[in-house]
Amino acid sequence: MEGRSTMLDSRVRERCCSSFSKQAFMTTLDARLLSLELGSAVIEVPFNDKFTQQHGFLHGGVVTSVLDSACGYAALTTMELDSGVLTVELKINLIKPAAGSLFQAHGKVVRAGRTLIVCTGEVCAEGDERNVIAVMQATMMAVRERAGIKD
Amino acid sequence: MEGRSTMLDSRVRERCCSSFSKQAFMTTLDARLLSLELGSAVIEVPFNDKFTQQHGFLHGGVVTSVLDSACGYAALTTMELDSGVLTVELKINLIKPAAGSLFQAHGKVVRAGRTLIVCTGEVCAEGDERNVIAVMQATMMAVRERAGIKD
Amino acid sequence: MEGRSTMLDSRVRERCCSSFSKQAFMTTLDARLLSLELGSAVIEVPFNDKFTQQHGFLHGGVVTSVLDSACGYAALTTMELDSGVLTVELKINLIKPAAGSLFQAHGKVVRAGRTLIVCTGEVCAEGDERNVIAVMQATMMAVRERAGIKD
Amino acid sequence: MEGRSTMLDSRVRERCCSSFSKQAFMTTLDARLLSLELGSAVIEVPFNDKFTQQHGFLHGGVVTSVLDSACGYAALTTMELDSGVLTVELKINLIKPAAGSLFQAHGKVVRAGRTLIVCTGEVCAEGDERNVIAVMQATMMAVRERAGIKD
Repeated sequence: MEGRSTMLDSRVRERCCSSFSKQAFMTTLDARLLSLELGSAVIEVPFNDKFTQQHGFLHGGVVTSVLDSACGYAALTTMELDSGVLTVELKINLIKPAAGSLFQAHGKVVRAGRTLIVCTGEVCAEGDERNVIAVMQATMMAVRERAGIKD
Repeated sequence: MEGRSTMLDSRVRERCCSSFSKQAFMTTLDARLLSLELGSAVIEVPFNDKFTQQHGFLHGGVVTSVLDSACGYAALTTMELDSGVLTVELKINLIKPAAGSLFQAHGKVVRAGRTLIVCTGEVCAEGDERNVIAVMQATMMAVRERAGIKD
Repeated sequence: MEGRSTMLDSRVRERCCSSFSKQAFMTTLDARLLSLELGSAVIEVPFNDKFTQQHGFLHGGVVTSVLDSACGYAALTTMELDSGVLTVELKINLIKPAAGSLFQAHGKVVRAGRTLIVCTGEVCAEGDERNVIAVMQATMMAVRERAGIKD
Repeated sequence: MEGRSTMLDSRVRERCCSSFSKQAFMTTLDARLLSLELGSAVIEVPFNDKFTQQHGFLHGGVVTSVLDSACGYAALTTMELDSGVLTVELKINLIKPAAGSLFQAHGKVVRAGRTLIVCTGEVCAEGDERNVIAVMQATMMAVRERAGIKD
């Protein structure tokens, strides 16, 4: 974020938390927004055998979902207060099986444009930053909250 | 699939169905494997408000999960019987909000190598092929089932 | 392109051809804009040993460049006359070595929004549609021509 | 690279430099391999108006090519001496126009598996690390040099 302070305006924080609490899927996953700074967000999700793939690890789609949300809220911290965020596209490499009891998804803004925000992110198992199981590069879009539809 | 017949060997079909039934996340989503041919797979998932994002649409991560699985099983139909499938990486564009009551994810093999399989896929709302809400391009990997770990 | 006619307005065609002729890199590659319809474009490039990788095949970056341009001009055919096109991001799978004497890059619009256009594309060797060497999924952006800068 | 020393074996260095010198496209672009460590590589390329896009900036495909090669050589430093490297797939966000007289592409290994290597990279203009114009996430593959073909 190019040297800017990472202190977050309290209204921005409230908006992000309010939006996160409306993501029913995050609630269903028992995910929580662990930390939020200007241009970054961390979401934590526990292992749950209702969300596994065929080998008993957390499903790659769940890993993707949580990291997508972390990147989305990282992006939202850089937007105007009346904007909402939508994922334009994302790319993820699943580099290790999602083995463990707890996962942390770190999203970070690489470039905040007025309309498009480019983010990178990674998921670590057991809060161990050296145990990266997935990396993402994604494009987010600022939209008028009322509409909630990109075009 | 380059002119090959799309008839599927019954043992291959059984393996795919057996693997799919072990994906607890698919069961949790009430997703079902609708169709399976050599090099293609279709998975259907109903709308469920437990899996929504902040605007009440199905979460992009759920759309991604189901399409990832459709591409994975499309890939698995092209592999040796003793192989399992893992997602190396995927890229998805979420082009419309996932509005609707039912979604179909279509996965297709573009290139089946011995180790790597390249797939494309799309998700349609309400079974309407003109109502594409997401498109994916992904890389799958054949692994020995016992290991279930790529390297 | 959702059932619309693919006939291209002559002014749109002129704009695309004019823009293509300004891409010095395409001239350097001896690439030419082979065909242009509403929502699609085909660019042809010959093999040239000045543009190879370490095994003597056409460099993957050249394959990417030509397919990026094909997707870009496919997108430009769907835009307002005073708009220019920029690549937001692209993802390519290089599925076979670029062996051959001539390559055709086919770009196609999957979804044309007002600001963002999602495209897919493929490169075939020797004009053989069954000989696909690369597939792409990309996001393009409409910008005011004067500026030529996305934000 | 998970705490390993970044000192590079001289034979590995020779292999990378020898392979780079065989990439005719890099020579044509006047690109040079600026630095090479275990798990990372930097390639520098000057602006050249033969390789521009329609607004006079360096073509996004050229930016992609150089960053692809930087990621590829970063990956090659982690492989066995008798292996060669091929790009399986790459994803790039072009976040600013490639304006400037000199560009540096930094490739870095995130995860080195036996067969697949995941890399990230970025391109900076004018050697200014704060002036990032593109970011990439890519998958590389180790292949027997003789074959030079992935499967």
